[in-house]
Amino acid sequence: MQKLKQFFGKFHIAVILGTLFFTQLSQPILAATGATETEGANVLHHSPKIFIVLALLLVAAKIFHLIEKIKLPPVVGELIAGIVLGNLAMFGWHYFDEVGSNDVVKFLAEFGVIILLFQIGLESNAKELTKVGGKSISVALIGAFLPFLLGSYLVGPWLLPGQDTSTYLFLGAALAATSVSIPSKVLMDMGKMQTKAAKIFLGATVIDDVLGLVILAVISGLVSTGEMSLVSIALTFFKSFAFLLGSVVLGQLIAPKLGKAFSKINTGMGTKFTFAISFGLLFAGLAASIGLEPIIGAFAAGLVLDHVHFKLFRDPSIVGQIKDSLADHKGSLREKIDKILHFHSRRNVEDIIEPLSLFFAPIFFVVTGMSVKLESLMSWQTLFLALILTVAAVVGKVAGGLALKEKYRFVVGLAMVPRGEVGLIFASVGQSLGVLSDQVFSVIVMTVLLTTIIGPFLLAQAIKKQKSLDD
Amino acid sequence: MQKLKQFFGKFHIAVILGTLFFTQLSQPILAATGATETEGANVLHHSPKIFIVLALLLVAAKIFHLIEKIKLPPVVGELIAGIVLGNLAMFGWHYFDEVGSNDVVKFLAEFGVIILLFQIGLESNAKELTKVGGKSISVALIGAFLPFLLGSYLVGPWLLPGQDTSTYLFLGAALAATSVSIPSKVLMDMGKMQTKAAKIFLGATVIDDVLGLVILAVISGLVSTGEMSLVSIALTFFKSFAFLLGSVVLGQLIAPKLGKAFSKINTGMGTKFTFAISFGLLFAGLAASIGLEPIIGAFAAGLVLDHVHFKLFRDPSIVGQIKDSLADHKGSLREKIDKILHFHSRRNVEDIIEPLSLFFAPIFFVVTGMSVKLESLMSWQTLFLALILTVAAVVGKVAGGLALKEKYRFVVGLAMVPRGEVGLIFASVGQSLGVLSDQVFSVIVMTVLLTTIIGPFLLAQAIKKQKSLDD
Repeated sequence: MQKLKQFFGKFHIAVILGTLFFTQLSQPILAATGATETEGANVLHHSPKIFIVLALLLVAAKIFHLIEKIKLPPVVGELIAGIVLGNLAMFGWHYFDEVGSNDVVKFLAEFGVIILLFQIGLESNAKELTKVGGKSISVALIGAFLPFLLGSYLVGPWLLPGQDTSTYLFLGAALAATSVSIPSKVLMDMGKMQTKAAKIFLGATVIDDVLGLVILAVISGLVSTGEMSLVSIALTFFKSFAFLLGSVVLGQLIAPKLGKAFSKINTGMGTKFTFAISFGLLFAGLAASIGLEPIIGAFAAGLVLDHVHFKLFRDPSIVGQIKDSLADHKGSLREKIDKILHFHSRRNVEDIIEPLSLFFAPIFFVVTGMSVKLESLMSWQTLFLALILTVAAVVGKVAGGLALKEKYRFVVGLAMVPRGEVGLIFASVGQSLGVLSDQVFSVIVMTVLLTTIIGPFLLAQAIKKQKSLDD
Repeated sequence: MQKLKQFFGKFHIAVILGTLFFTQLSQPILAATGATETEGANVLHHSPKIFIVLALLLVAAKIFHLIEKIKLPPVVGELIAGIVLGNLAMFGWHYFDEVGSNDVVKFLAEFGVIILLFQIGLESNAKELTKVGGKSISVALIGAFLPFLLGSYLVGPWLLPGQDTSTYLFLGAALAATSVSIPSKVLMDMGKMQTKAAKIFLGATVIDDVLGLVILAVISGLVSTGEMSLVSIALTFFKSFAFLLGSVVLGQLIAPKLGKAFSKINTGMGTKFTFAISFGLLFAGLAASIGLEPIIGAFAAGLVLDHVHFKLFRDPSIVGQIKDSLADHKGSLREKIDKILHFHSRRNVEDIIEPLSLFFAPIFFVVTGMSVKLESLMSWQTLFLALILTVAAVVGKVAGGLALKEKYRFVVGLAMVPRGEVGLIFASVGQSLGVLSDQVFSVIVMTVLLTTIIGPFLLAQAIKKQKSLDD
């Protein structure tokens, strides 16, 4: 905490002062230069402000990573950064008012989600799944559908009477989500990633992602067509499932061929990058073309791409050089480094995508946070709703874990609690479709925030109490 | 060539067929889904098409990297890819027609240039400069101003009579530019990067970049204010020079403090990335705020940032792990790897920025190529103009080299010939200010293309003939 204080004492004030200075500096000039360059209706676009705003969003997100020091996940920090920036207007500071509705910022945020889901797909391995298969499926099914039903058909209609059916459905969908990254980090930090419980959890989250995306697709489809008949539900369900299955099957067929073709241009890092990213974008575009969310396509593309598709690419980086110098050596140092490099060759694709995610993803989380209107949360009724939703969210996921017979079933259930990035993505899809009022959107974000804060805490406690996570 | 044929035989046709398929697939659906999602006037934004278009732009740019096999620089390939895509309308294929004028695509392209100039700045080292100082300055001064004067006051008015003064000025400015990356690659491939000639060349290009950006700033300022008086020229000149100098001096002071502050959040790769990129964006925004091109700010930010500012960040990547395992070892393998790691620690910041550039920069080059209207080039007069401009461009830069007394002065002059990415950036600034007709813009791009194709060729020949590049 001493460190925190020091930091805020020196740096934070400097940033605020600096920000104020830049604001004063750029604000009046904006009108002058903005006028000559802008073509559309939006003042921000291509005006100097967009660069400064992007820099400030990234810095703000980063400053709030400080909450990692009190063991909270960075994504919570980025969201809080957004909530702070988005509610500065309450104090008469309107610099960030238009940011969330700017077309370019909106695109960058959407792109951030696409990259995120592509990454999640890349890191999910279809083979891992089959190993723990059966057990993960029951955890995932209960863990996805129970919170969805609790949100959509119990808590929603009870505490928010008189809303549209689609509002309730999105309320439930956001609760169906599971974060992969946040509990994984807890398990990794505690050295439990290789346990059986962790593997069941990982399998369940991948299935949960698929189920969640299908639920999302069905609801989005219903909302945009306006039809709620059983036939249209079945049709959308079939379409999304067919797309996911079709793109994985088709992708498995064409990815090796594409990898080979790209490697004929050259085998450098840039070509590997272009292959991966354009594959993801293409699938995102295809999903969008048939009326699904682009993130579903990006996730499918990530699932398809595997390290074998990149085997023809050489590694011109430092790793390649180190490999070369290992060639004529034996001994313990060589063994150690071999081991590290072996691990690295699996990470490689993810590594070159990561800087894109470092740039785009915080924009998404900060902009999502900006949409949270604190005024709309300031009633006992709303806070009560958020609390009850959080309880439903926790109960639903823990019940999923209890489907297991193992002693560590409670641990698996708690690992599924944090909604994290995935819950936010679902909420923002609902918002973009116009079915969530400011109040409901803010409540969902608060619920996601609460599950993401208490989830890792409860999980860590449960792991400490449990003797073994392996049988 | 056999390889090329094979490639085109299999892969290229598949891509074209695939593209046609996606086009047919997405085109009709676009109208349907586009209508519900679009808010502005542009159909592309947030419609499925944008993702497919971006994927196709990146893939097209990558396919044309094949020209590397016939020893041409990749940027030439990306530009040709854009010219091809942008002129498909001649064959009745209008899929890419609106792409260049789409707001999001325009922003991504502009962002690409900013990242590029930031990278050029990062790779330019102010200290290297001082070593060869004097000699580089004379090469740079003549090499920047002679082509500028030849273009603006001789070739322009002679072969394009009746145009606006500002058109002539931009014609000249694009000729003043020098590419850093393209000749560097030739020198590196031939193992001549450590010679004295290469160092003089590198010093001269950095000074050239600064001079070119100042020329650009002055002309842009004149065009947007409409004033051409000597006083306003002097004022803009002073402003741009003061900004560059001021931001380098101020930046040197605050960068270490910022580095320290950021490292207190955490010392991971993500924080290093955010520090670097937000520094670049902030300077770009500041430059834009006082009416300069944002690229000038990005270049200054890159110049300022040095590896020492990142010394507090640990390296959690594979490199860090390898370093750790080196701790208790001695012997030749350790020495080899130490050497590689030492080199790596200098590259580090550039490496984490590179994927951003891999994504954004091709969008800029392809979009720039798309603006070249082949119809406007199809007259003998225009082709003659491009040819004469190319001659002026070569003569001007070679004359810069001849300012030296060394035997290798011809080599230094030829190294400055390729305009590459920097020439294109200047041309596109002129286009965005509306002072270049389609014809003049296309002529400039053709000239840049020609210098970038023949430059490396002549340079390689000259190096082969020269015995020593060191005295």
